[in-house]
Amino acid sequence: MVHFSLDNLDKMERFYRANFINALTGFKSPVLTGTVNTQGIENLAIFNNIVHLGSNPALIGFVNRPREAAPHTLANIEATGVYTMNLVANSFFRQAHQTSAKYPEGVSEFEQTGLHSEKRGNCPAPFVAESPVKFALELKEVIPIRFNNTYFVIGAVTDIYLEPTLLLSDGCLDLPKAEIIASLGINSYHTVGEGTKLAYAKP
Amino acid sequence: MVHFSLDNLDKMERFYRANFINALTGFKSPVLTGTVNTQGIENLAIFNNIVHLGSNPALIGFVNRPREAAPHTLANIEATGVYTMNLVANSFFRQAHQTSAKYPEGVSEFEQTGLHSEKRGNCPAPFVAESPVKFALELKEVIPIRFNNTYFVIGAVTDIYLEPTLLLSDGCLDLPKAEIIASLGINSYHTVGEGTKLAYAKP
Repeated sequence: MVHFSLDNLDKMERFYRANFINALTGFKSPVLTGTVNTQGIENLAIFNNIVHLGSNPALIGFVNRPREAAPHTLANIEATGVYTMNLVANSFFRQAHQTSAKYPEGVSEFEQTGLHSEKRGNCPAPFVAESPVKFALELKEVIPIRFNNTYFVIGAVTDIYLEPTLLLSDGCLDLPKAEIIASLGINSYHTVGEGTKLAYAKP
Repeated sequence: MVHFSLDNLDKMERFYRANFINALTGFKSPVLTGTVNTQGIENLAIFNNIVHLGSNPALIGFVNRPREAAPHTLANIEATGVYTMNLVANSFFRQAHQTSAKYPEGVSEFEQTGLHSEKRGNCPAPFVAESPVKFALELKEVIPIRFNNTYFVIGAVTDIYLEPTLLLSDGCLDLPKAEIIASLGINSYHTVGEGTKLAYAKP
C-alpha cells in the first residue's frame, strides 16, 4: 500500500488534492436542491454531501461550502425557510452536473439546463419535474463549521413525492429501478446495481 | 406520484419509517470506523453517513447516533482523539454489516466478524487489513444535534493508505476497480458501475 502523510497532502496541486480527498468518502447520491429567493427567482444546485440524521423526526443534513463560493442556495434557504431535494436519475445527470456552473445571481439553473421546475402542495421552493424521488424540507438550523467556513445545514422533511412503483413492502425504495445514480468526487457519475439485502445483524 | 405528508410519516410503523426515510438520501459508501479504548480493546463499526467537509484542511464528518444506541465508537474517539475509516469492498460487505450487531462493550468486532485488524504508522486505532482504501483521522469537534441527540463528529485526515493501482492521474480514486460498494438505507448493499467523468461545469 502507498502512504500519504499530511506533508504529502500539503504538497499536492490544489485540484489534484480536491479530487483525492473528495474520493475518500466514496460514492454518494447527489441531490438537486431547489430554492427560491424573496423576489421569486428560482435556484437549483447539485449537492453531494447529504446525510441522514434521523427518521423520527425525519431530519437530513447537508454541507454548504463557504458563502463566497456557493452563496445562493444558503441565502435562499435562510430567507424563505424551505427547500427541496430531488434525487438524480441516469437520464438527467449531465444537466444536474451543469447546475454546478457559477451562474450569476438572478439566473435560473432550470432555464440554463433544460430541467423543468414544478410546484407541489404549498411549497414555494421548486421541485425538479424529472426527478422520481423528491421531498420538501423546512430549515431547522445552520451550524457554521469553524475550521473552513462551511456550514452544516439541518432540515426537517415535510413532504415526500415519489413514483409509487419504487416503494417496497418494507418501506425502502427501489432506487436502482429508478436508475438513481451515485457520484464519486466532484465530477464522476455512476450507475448502481440491484443490490443485496441483509438481515438485521445480531451478535 | 404518490405524496406522503408529516401525518403519513407519523402513522408509519417504526421500522417501515426508518427504511423509508433512510432511503431518501440515496446511495452512500459505508465505512468501517476503527477505534480503541484506553484499555486497548478495539472496536469496529459500520457507518453510512459520512460527508466530505473540505480538502484543505482535509476534513470529514460523520453522524453518530444517540449515545445509548451507539456508545462505543464515540466514547473511544473522545478518549483517544483518533480513529480510522476503511472503505468496504464487495468481498467483505457481509462482515462489515455484521459489525452493526450490538456486541457488549469489551467484545472486538474484529474477532466476531473475522475481519483482520492491522496497525499502521503510530496510529493507536486499528485499520481493517482487507480494506483497499483507508485513512486515519484526528478528532476536531463533536457537535451535538439538539433535535434528536445525535452527534456530528468532525475529524481531520492525517494519513491515507491505499492500493497504488487505484490512484488516477487527476488525483481521483478508481473505486469501481476496487469493487467498493454503496449502501442504501440500513441493510441494502450495491455494486457500482464504472462511471462517466464530466468536465468542470461553466456557464
